[in-house]
Amino acid sequence: MKTRVAVVGGTGYTGFELVALLEQHPRVELSAVTSQTYAGQPIAEVFPALRGMSSLVCEPLDIESLVERADCIFVALPHQTAMEVVAPLFRAGKRVVDLSADFRFRDPTTYEKWYQEHTAKDLLEDAVYGLPELHGKQIRSARLVANPGCYPTGVILAAAPLVAAGVVEPDSLIADCKSGVSGAGRAATLTTHFCETNEGFSAYKVGEHRHTPEIKQELSIVTGRSIKVVFTPHLVPMSRGILTTLYAKLSRDVSHEEVSGLYQAAYGKAPFVRLLSEGQLPSTLHVRGTNYCDIGFRLEPRTGRIISISAIDNLTRGASGQAICNMNLMFDFGEITGLQLRVWQP
Amino acid sequence: MKTRVAVVGGTGYTGFELVALLEQHPRVELSAVTSQTYAGQPIAEVFPALRGMSSLVCEPLDIESLVERADCIFVALPHQTAMEVVAPLFRAGKRVVDLSADFRFRDPTTYEKWYQEHTAKDLLEDAVYGLPELHGKQIRSARLVANPGCYPTGVILAAAPLVAAGVVEPDSLIADCKSGVSGAGRAATLTTHFCETNEGFSAYKVGEHRHTPEIKQELSIVTGRSIKVVFTPHLVPMSRGILTTLYAKLSRDVSHEEVSGLYQAAYGKAPFVRLLSEGQLPSTLHVRGTNYCDIGFRLEPRTGRIISISAIDNLTRGASGQAICNMNLMFDFGEITGLQLRVWQP
Amino acid sequence: MKTRVAVVGGTGYTGFELVALLEQHPRVELSAVTSQTYAGQPIAEVFPALRGMSSLVCEPLDIESLVERADCIFVALPHQTAMEVVAPLFRAGKRVVDLSADFRFRDPTTYEKWYQEHTAKDLLEDAVYGLPELHGKQIRSARLVANPGCYPTGVILAAAPLVAAGVVEPDSLIADCKSGVSGAGRAATLTTHFCETNEGFSAYKVGEHRHTPEIKQELSIVTGRSIKVVFTPHLVPMSRGILTTLYAKLSRDVSHEEVSGLYQAAYGKAPFVRLLSEGQLPSTLHVRGTNYCDIGFRLEPRTGRIISISAIDNLTRGASGQAICNMNLMFDFGEITGLQLRVWQP
Amino acid sequence: MKTRVAVVGGTGYTGFELVALLEQHPRVELSAVTSQTYAGQPIAEVFPALRGMSSLVCEPLDIESLVERADCIFVALPHQTAMEVVAPLFRAGKRVVDLSADFRFRDPTTYEKWYQEHTAKDLLEDAVYGLPELHGKQIRSARLVANPGCYPTGVILAAAPLVAAGVVEPDSLIADCKSGVSGAGRAATLTTHFCETNEGFSAYKVGEHRHTPEIKQELSIVTGRSIKVVFTPHLVPMSRGILTTLYAKLSRDVSHEEVSGLYQAAYGKAPFVRLLSEGQLPSTLHVRGTNYCDIGFRLEPRTGRIISISAIDNLTRGASGQAICNMNLMFDFGEITGLQLRVWQP
Repeated sequence: MKTRVAVVGGTGYTGFELVALLEQHPRVELSAVTSQTYAGQPIAEVFPALRGMSSLVCEPLDIESLVERADCIFVALPHQTAMEVVAPLFRAGKRVVDLSADFRFRDPTTYEKWYQEHTAKDLLEDAVYGLPELHGKQIRSARLVANPGCYPTGVILAAAPLVAAGVVEPDSLIADCKSGVSGAGRAATLTTHFCETNEGFSAYKVGEHRHTPEIKQELSIVTGRSIKVVFTPHLVPMSRGILTTLYAKLSRDVSHEEVSGLYQAAYGKAPFVRLLSEGQLPSTLHVRGTNYCDIGFRLEPRTGRIISISAIDNLTRGASGQAICNMNLMFDFGEITGLQLRVWQP
Repeated sequence: MKTRVAVVGGTGYTGFELVALLEQHPRVELSAVTSQTYAGQPIAEVFPALRGMSSLVCEPLDIESLVERADCIFVALPHQTAMEVVAPLFRAGKRVVDLSADFRFRDPTTYEKWYQEHTAKDLLEDAVYGLPELHGKQIRSARLVANPGCYPTGVILAAAPLVAAGVVEPDSLIADCKSGVSGAGRAATLTTHFCETNEGFSAYKVGEHRHTPEIKQELSIVTGRSIKVVFTPHLVPMSRGILTTLYAKLSRDVSHEEVSGLYQAAYGKAPFVRLLSEGQLPSTLHVRGTNYCDIGFRLEPRTGRIISISAIDNLTRGASGQAICNMNLMFDFGEITGLQLRVWQP
Repeated sequence: MKTRVAVVGGTGYTGFELVALLEQHPRVELSAVTSQTYAGQPIAEVFPALRGMSSLVCEPLDIESLVERADCIFVALPHQTAMEVVAPLFRAGKRVVDLSADFRFRDPTTYEKWYQEHTAKDLLEDAVYGLPELHGKQIRSARLVANPGCYPTGVILAAAPLVAAGVVEPDSLIADCKSGVSGAGRAATLTTHFCETNEGFSAYKVGEHRHTPEIKQELSIVTGRSIKVVFTPHLVPMSRGILTTLYAKLSRDVSHEEVSGLYQAAYGKAPFVRLLSEGQLPSTLHVRGTNYCDIGFRLEPRTGRIISISAIDNLTRGASGQAICNMNLMFDFGEITGLQLRVWQP
Repeated sequence: MKTRVAVVGGTGYTGFELVALLEQHPRVELSAVTSQTYAGQPIAEVFPALRGMSSLVCEPLDIESLVERADCIFVALPHQTAMEVVAPLFRAGKRVVDLSADFRFRDPTTYEKWYQEHTAKDLLEDAVYGLPELHGKQIRSARLVANPGCYPTGVILAAAPLVAAGVVEPDSLIADCKSGVSGAGRAATLTTHFCETNEGFSAYKVGEHRHTPEIKQELSIVTGRSIKVVFTPHLVPMSRGILTTLYAKLSRDVSHEEVSGLYQAAYGKAPFVRLLSEGQLPSTLHVRGTNYCDIGFRLEPRTGRIISISAIDNLTRGASGQAICNMNLMFDFGEITGLQLRVWQP
């Protein structure tokens, strides 16, 4: 028998991605999609790509109804709104994968500093940060998974083995990240207007993006002490993908083989990390539409630095694919089930 | 037990698409990929997107070896080269799906007029034009399928029900087609250079594109007499997709319902055609990476015309997905097996 | 002494284009830019590209003030709103170039059928349709110029010499047009969202676009009788440019030379039309940011048709560049003054 | 009387840009364009955008003929080939702007380490590095200008005032740069293929790009001691533009005003640098097709770093526009003559 799942907030891009992937997941039955804006409309009218793939009609959010009709709920709402929905679902005994930032921080003061008041602090100790390569064991037994942000996914996967092994100076980390436009969401704004983005490459929210404390938290845990990290997001004229160029000062002489070994030890068994050979570098093109994170690096003895680069699809690995992976772990469906997605080139 | 398949000419874009889809097809085992240029190299080095998805190494073409190791062979070579490979494979009793133009024409003089000398004319009577919606029955029993060209697929599917029913004047057909750049192949040319294509929209080969006689042949069969068709291809600054805008003069007064009924009768049971409701129009975005052909139309009483529009992915429905669909029919795997591909938006 | 000009509605894309070009026009001084939305903001904050190029501050619309401060006013407002502004400016003795559709139609019933009630019908007899190649003489003495729509500019220039000479059947005209996204304006909508446009090519407003009667009016004048025309607009994933593929049935046997001669006779002295040699085809890339209209064609004896193709930049030739050209003619500044714009490739 | 100029190697993208801009420069007459590949073809056939703008025919390189027909020669050849042409032109008394790397390095051993043997070392002492904001005075009296690389232009302009004032630790500089595809030249390669670039964002030549020593040389001069710099180039799916994100450790507490003052002091009178206000960030969109370098920055006290961002057009400011600016200075034409280029948005 298939597990019944629901998507709350199904008409943004991460919601779309959840619906598209869940409708083809062999172990689940998608029983409901909610949308404030599109309630009453077939999801395949909102997203014509879904014609013939989903017969669901968007419905207004009704917690009680969801509790009755789903065992696992994906919440794809903006932060703050999310926690108000997650809390009653969790308390009703449901397993929840929350794609917002609301349950990502262990320390609510960090959340409150960067976001706003937290109204469900008591749930924080139940929440697990849903990066499978770092917290797979806890995710398996979790009832509430806080799905990582898109940028943090790419940065943390590239940085964790390095800081964990102590081969880099933790406070030297600089993550220069570049994201496709879908990362800005489906809302129609001047920023997402084709003509303002096409041929326009720029940085934004320099020094103030809310993914900063998330990266810091996770890498501090790995390092064993509070670290500092510079994080600069950029917008790329493309639809999907995040490339992270991570700079760090080497704390000692290391060889390419030694660093390769660190990545291999960390991710050798991870089905969704692909470690590149020396001389190869990741491209967002090669991970499009998949749950892969590709990682390659280069040592630069001249400046005593390592440059490690990761590529992910921001909507799949950076959001909905990872959310489904977390469900797979929570329900013991097999980590890769429903995520053996076709690759693209072009 | 899985059926063994091989791809000859696996390192162009249609070759890539075949490998990517066949490696995940549940009924087949991809046993060989040949490439003149990349022989000896892992296919995953040629196409980094395939890392972890395929461990095959490109090999030089060896007919005997292929005959031993595969039951179905996809030939993704340029025309002329293709027939030299198809003939011995076919004669060795193999089932072949040929993606070139070499076996698409019933009358070799048409081929020889638009292409060059045909050196395997005796096979033409065995070849079936592989458009499942039109020739599904013959494909099921075929040993040699000539996979349709990308443009003809979109044009013929939009036009066939109209000319078959006689609601349009056959010689009035104008197919204004627009293709993404992958249709020009993976060869590095000035035409495919990013900077010459980006922000550059243009027509090419006006009045002389070789897909013209292919469209003409198939629509003439449907019509029951030799028809004329104007076909103009354009290059769009995007990677994938073909949109066909088909113009035809109505031969009599018809209602939207009546024409809808014609399409419904033709494609109502076809798993890979999606007929759009009145007021909806197809977009290449909605069929990306899938085997779907979306069709919508509009009557224009003011000018006595119908404008029918179809959208396909040129590499999937227009080439490799359709080729696999043809294999599915030939081997009775189930038409949609391995082709329930995820949809995209964005 | 420089002529004082003003732009009403300066913060859409055509407004931007007007400001950018007028600030560098050697014969004029841009004295005011109005904007409802951005009143009080420097235009260089609204459009950062204008930093250092314009020190103007957007101001609310004040007819009296404009009348005092400008001799030529460009009105870049939506239709209906435009006529309410044009009328008082015109009556105050100002010369006006209106970029809306409000004064393009000789017969107000056509306007009222496709748009809405016309509240300044008395001005229609003073308005000249501002296509310099067709109405240059009238424009020179006009006080009110109705600047053509972007699509009509490309279609009419390609079609006029053909219908005027009677070499094509007038009711056989089909204009399949493709426009960059800037044609949809700067308003943030789902249609202009990068992710909904990128890799998405589609037709829109099939059979109902308001540029249809405009094309029909002008080509009917040229032909000498009321003609019918099919016009289908498409949206291309690029920022700028319109390519028109015009199909027409030949009314008699003609040679390439003869048709070339017709175009040559019509445009040989026009500084902003470039006629391509046989075998060459226009691309939007080659006219980017310029006031050129490139035209090439091909005869297809097999089907008895001509396919004539034109390329323009929708914001320059299709709107603001043409508007400035009209001003040049009205004020006798020299047709090309301020419009010798650099070309681009890439 | 106009000064006669010539372009050697006119059929790459920088060559195109030179021709397009020089044909409209009021003080010069472009007398010759050479091209090995296209000798005998009109430049307007090689670059159809130039139709009607240039009647020049590409000619084979003939030093003697150039010496007779031009007073200033722009050499847009690959390195190594360039020096073989520059040397005889220079010795014949001509003024030369060389766009290759051949004369950028004061120390030939640096050149020989990163490139190859230098065969015209005696000219190095005559060569001036053509960055007008840093070396304007020397350029005015130079006979040989080595036009800067595209990346170094953006990096050096952002970094120079900071290292000069000592507010940052010189060895902490990290320049993460992103370039449009035209930076890779017009050669048709897999790297520049539309389908391999579109939706593909990636780094390349990490730790080994030849612009590294050029950045190092110029910033070492400014700093007064040899410094180290990390430089990572990336390829963006767009045609034009370079964005540089420069990271540096602050050597002491500074305020935004103080750093603004440093930039103001350095570039306040430079016509082609636009300093952005606090809170504003550059975009490649806003400098397209112009000679501007836009600079904005942000202090990050949390990590003790400054992030300074610059945007240029790689073909205009990063190559041909800057080359013309250098000619303007050498010939005292006025720095901005012929470079008051229209701005774009979109």
